[in-house]
Amino acid sequence: MGKVVAVVGATGAVGREMLRVLEQRKFPVDKLIALASARSAGQKLPFAGGQIEVQTLGARSFDGVDIALFSAGASVAREFGPVAAKAGAVVIDNSSAWRMDPEVPLVVPEVNMAAAAHRPKGIIANPNCSTIQMVVALKPLHDAARVRHVIVSTYQATSGKGHAAVEELLAQTRAVLDGKTPEASVFPGIMAFNVLCDWKAGDSAYSEEELKMVQETRKIMGDDTIGVSPTTVRVPVVNGHSEAIFVRFERPMTAVEAKTLLRHAEGVVLMEDDYAPGKHPQPVQVSGQDPVYVGRVRDDLFEPGSLHLFVVGDNLRKGAALNAVQIAERL
Amino acid sequence: MGKVVAVVGATGAVGREMLRVLEQRKFPVDKLIALASARSAGQKLPFAGGQIEVQTLGARSFDGVDIALFSAGASVAREFGPVAAKAGAVVIDNSSAWRMDPEVPLVVPEVNMAAAAHRPKGIIANPNCSTIQMVVALKPLHDAARVRHVIVSTYQATSGKGHAAVEELLAQTRAVLDGKTPEASVFPGIMAFNVLCDWKAGDSAYSEEELKMVQETRKIMGDDTIGVSPTTVRVPVVNGHSEAIFVRFERPMTAVEAKTLLRHAEGVVLMEDDYAPGKHPQPVQVSGQDPVYVGRVRDDLFEPGSLHLFVVGDNLRKGAALNAVQIAERL
Repeated sequence: MGKVVAVVGATGAVGREMLRVLEQRKFPVDKLIALASARSAGQKLPFAGGQIEVQTLGARSFDGVDIALFSAGASVAREFGPVAAKAGAVVIDNSSAWRMDPEVPLVVPEVNMAAAAHRPKGIIANPNCSTIQMVVALKPLHDAARVRHVIVSTYQATSGKGHAAVEELLAQTRAVLDGKTPEASVFPGIMAFNVLCDWKAGDSAYSEEELKMVQETRKIMGDDTIGVSPTTVRVPVVNGHSEAIFVRFERPMTAVEAKTLLRHAEGVVLMEDDYAPGKHPQPVQVSGQDPVYVGRVRDDLFEPGSLHLFVVGDNLRKGAALNAVQIAERL
Repeated sequence: MGKVVAVVGATGAVGREMLRVLEQRKFPVDKLIALASARSAGQKLPFAGGQIEVQTLGARSFDGVDIALFSAGASVAREFGPVAAKAGAVVIDNSSAWRMDPEVPLVVPEVNMAAAAHRPKGIIANPNCSTIQMVVALKPLHDAARVRHVIVSTYQATSGKGHAAVEELLAQTRAVLDGKTPEASVFPGIMAFNVLCDWKAGDSAYSEEELKMVQETRKIMGDDTIGVSPTTVRVPVVNGHSEAIFVRFERPMTAVEAKTLLRHAEGVVLMEDDYAPGKHPQPVQVSGQDPVYVGRVRDDLFEPGSLHLFVVGDNLRKGAALNAVQIAERL
């Protein structure tokens, strides 16, 4: 009764996390096929006590595959997503390639699993990491009082930009500590002991990452009237995104009510003792964990009925690999 | 025509910066008196090509002093501020001790220098670092369109917590890179490659740092109806605070108009090319600079007439030492 599962981009940060998540969650895998570009072919990846040899992604890679988890770039997903779907696999793609396609459902299981049933292209899209943790936290509040406007500032980890970004942060940090000049190739400057904004995309004054949060939130929540105003910022953290979120609702909501809802929300851990020093959600503690951690739930001081939340999640797990595997589990 | 200047807390992070700022700005110092606790007495600090020996702070320390710059804690300021004022010195205090006293003006020279004229206690207070850089950026916009509500998320540097905090960040970072366990005494946990929220103060769900931003902004701007909703967060940066700011006005303002105002605003550098990768304001570039850097000025996507700004300043300079010296210069 097991499945044949292909992981595309298996050698990347999210791909490796997908293998770990499949194993940890005892996903019923009959056969695992690890796919990557020719450059990575032949590499061995640990899985289920053994080793899987990485194969070169090609036109016949998906023959007999039941589930294809894509964690490669958007261009690979655009080219090979339809190939995998045509071969009969259910494609769950972590790139931005298909997210806003009206024929592709964009799914966070805790929020809109039902949407996954209608997938005319055989493809389901996994949302952006920053969006996933935000909608998991907002969904129970939205169901109760309808979210109208979200103002969100992110504190994003470098792992969201892949292995090379993490390595560059660590190398730059060591250089700074040793009094040497840090070198940048992944980041447009110094990431060590610094803060870097994303830059704008095309004509918009907003960055690509910011526009993803705007559009994907609406699509996942199934409500095109929700306003999202994001400022996305990269901080010198290895793994785990944090978000400072302000929410205005249609029907006023108090922090007390929000905490009651979040305490029982699926996929959420509410940190209630977070007013003590060091007891709020933190990336180093949340990294490696499945749930989205919500803390500092408090009433706005000037707009009664509006709230602030501080939301921290593992961007490689719930923000990417885990969310994709959870979709596969529930199909 | 020079002045006798005392610096209280001269060996601290802000105290040392005060000596540097006085020297760099060629403040007319006839005699400089460096004061600190008995523990630091006898230390030598560099000033104007020579060395100043640190003296123990005491009841007679301020005899003949014209200007006393305090950068010690609140309890020292509460005890010795009035002593210095009684001895005839103008006291400019960087602690939180006197900031909300109705008889003590709270001054940012670019915003409300006139307030410094009325100082019945002989004391002028220097605002909190996070507040200073925010009000410098908001003032020209407030004059034009009246600020109604500010939602601000901070990315604060460790230097704002003093020398020991910076040393702990660096030591923790080295430990993590070397695979050792980081130790915490200044911070309530791991600051290296992590994000730490401030914790709450007393009965409020908001932290002390957050409540300072709420109260001090109103006092400096001279408008008790301004709403400030802050989330203050510490990031693993050595020096330079960043702030993601959303502003709603009484009269709608566009990003185009705001940029025109900010381009000519005192103490502000508007980064106009900040949509290119790495060209926005950044702590590592702003550290050591006097102005407040404003970038990513953009219209909100859902609330016409409201704006977003990204504001970065050197928290030890404009956020503390420089602001105090600028007050002294203009007196």
